[in-house]
Amino acid sequence: MTPPSRRDHDRAQSVVALGGGHGLFASLQALRRLVGELVVDDLTAVVTVADNGGSSGRLRGEFGVLPPGDLRMALAALCGDDEWGATWSRVLQHRYSGDGEMRGHVTGNLLIVTLWELLGDHVQALDWVGRLLGASGRVLPMALTPMDITARVRGLDPGAPDALTTVRGQVEVATTAGVITAVDLDPPAPEACPEAVAAVRAADWVVLGPGSWFTSVIPHLMVPDLRRALVETEARVVVVLNLAEQPGETGGFGPVDHLAVLAEHAPDLRIHTVLADARQVGDEPGERALLEQQVAAHGARLVVGDVAHDDGSPRHDPDRLAACFESVMADS
Amino acid sequence: MTPPSRRDHDRAQSVVALGGGHGLFASLQALRRLVGELVVDDLTAVVTVADNGGSSGRLRGEFGVLPPGDLRMALAALCGDDEWGATWSRVLQHRYSGDGEMRGHVTGNLLIVTLWELLGDHVQALDWVGRLLGASGRVLPMALTPMDITARVRGLDPGAPDALTTVRGQVEVATTAGVITAVDLDPPAPEACPEAVAAVRAADWVVLGPGSWFTSVIPHLMVPDLRRALVETEARVVVVLNLAEQPGETGGFGPVDHLAVLAEHAPDLRIHTVLADARQVGDEPGERALLEQQVAAHGARLVVGDVAHDDGSPRHDPDRLAACFESVMADS
Repeated sequence: MTPPSRRDHDRAQSVVALGGGHGLFASLQALRRLVGELVVDDLTAVVTVADNGGSSGRLRGEFGVLPPGDLRMALAALCGDDEWGATWSRVLQHRYSGDGEMRGHVTGNLLIVTLWELLGDHVQALDWVGRLLGASGRVLPMALTPMDITARVRGLDPGAPDALTTVRGQVEVATTAGVITAVDLDPPAPEACPEAVAAVRAADWVVLGPGSWFTSVIPHLMVPDLRRALVETEARVVVVLNLAEQPGETGGFGPVDHLAVLAEHAPDLRIHTVLADARQVGDEPGERALLEQQVAAHGARLVVGDVAHDDGSPRHDPDRLAACFESVMADS
Repeated sequence: MTPPSRRDHDRAQSVVALGGGHGLFASLQALRRLVGELVVDDLTAVVTVADNGGSSGRLRGEFGVLPPGDLRMALAALCGDDEWGATWSRVLQHRYSGDGEMRGHVTGNLLIVTLWELLGDHVQALDWVGRLLGASGRVLPMALTPMDITARVRGLDPGAPDALTTVRGQVEVATTAGVITAVDLDPPAPEACPEAVAAVRAADWVVLGPGSWFTSVIPHLMVPDLRRALVETEARVVVVLNLAEQPGETGGFGPVDHLAVLAEHAPDLRIHTVLADARQVGDEPGERALLEQQVAAHGARLVVGDVAHDDGSPRHDPDRLAACFESVMADS
């Protein structure tokens, strides 16, 4: 990879980032910097809505609403840089402690549910929270109804190690002791959020990942209208690989495995760029050659950047990831 | 009373309104109109913090914080007139229904508690909510520690009808079956909010009432520094009488009784104007004469206005109350 260039782009780019949880938070924190630098002028986050744990799971159970947590995190990632944006972002992210009934609830989740109840419109409500934060982009759910993730998992039955078991629920899938072979949604084929579909179709760039691979990234491809948009869009698709395996969900997975299961779930998705971290692919020459080969087989290019945090945690550094995104967009 | 005049005032007035709950909401809705008309340029609400019921009571019990409910209502009353202010005011006032753990909680209460936890400063936190709403004034707690209202109540012991019983808790006092003879705070003599004391001392006008007389209005006079400020301020004190008795708290109370118990709790308070509703004092000539006599005995003037809602409910009409306030300020 050439070092991030700061040359002027012909025009600012429109970007849609898909994912959920901490992974999407990381890509949005990076992309938000490019909005500030006028490299990106139109940023949309599309968020999984299958969470069944924690504050989101409780609110979903109590009110039958979409799980708000990943939407709230995405909004917080896009907050304005000033004291106003930073303060309301902290409010949004505040989690109650103590031993009482509020313990574990997150203020932003409650705020989002309130706006859903008051306005009766998912997208309008999220736009109001975005305006509150002075957000650098828009946050949309991938679908308009809550759903569960189901997974076909191998190795859960000690008597039949090759047998497949169905595991249901984002939390349960993310922490399974077996090997996930495929995921799906229940109910299957949910209705996509029309604004999310339109954003993907109109985008210059689509960023998929990083994030919990089976429970935050791949689910977007299981929503028919969204998948169709991802396959048909003229936007260039950038897949950002995770920096490490996640015990449970992707235990033992290297970069090649991440790409392989994505391709299995969406063989018709055209990938433009696969973005991997230098330290992750650099250690074993065989692994890197295999990844390059697989990326090439998809008709994609491999970009290896220095995007991990210095602290050694498997987190992307927002500034480095931003520089890498900018370079990817400039070099295409 | 002369009809509300719209003549120019020499300068805009600074007003502090003290109370709690729906009564303070009504006076603030009226005073907010005078901010819009540039009659008032500095409006501060000072709010009782002794509630122990509902969402406020639960949050107070769970987090040891001031009960936020009356503060939240006061903020909502002052929200900006535009779509922004109206929407966030609705969010603030939203109460969760259903049968789950959130049932009965109010979004604005949760937001205020979050800001208290994050900022560690009662006044700063309330100012942030005020900014969110584009509020036409500032909302302050009367004191910085939660407290309970206690009442000496006659008639609760069937065997000894003249015996006095101590009733504890705002909810319990407000709904007592006996006759309240006096109220106090526990812990006694709480520390006042310094900004509230300063606002009273700097004001041109202080508005006391309407509202639950023993549990929202009189408690302000039980906070030593606030009481001293109310007694010593050069501001003119306007007492707004309630439109009806409240079963329990002020069952059987007419205007004269309201004024009498206020004077008993604060004999040194100089009252400038007593504002009563025409329909309330107009029915019985004897009652009106008695009220006039009592008002005069306090060195105050009686202003009888048409301030009640047309729907017959014991609520002040904000426009009429605003017109009456304006007239009171203009005629002094």
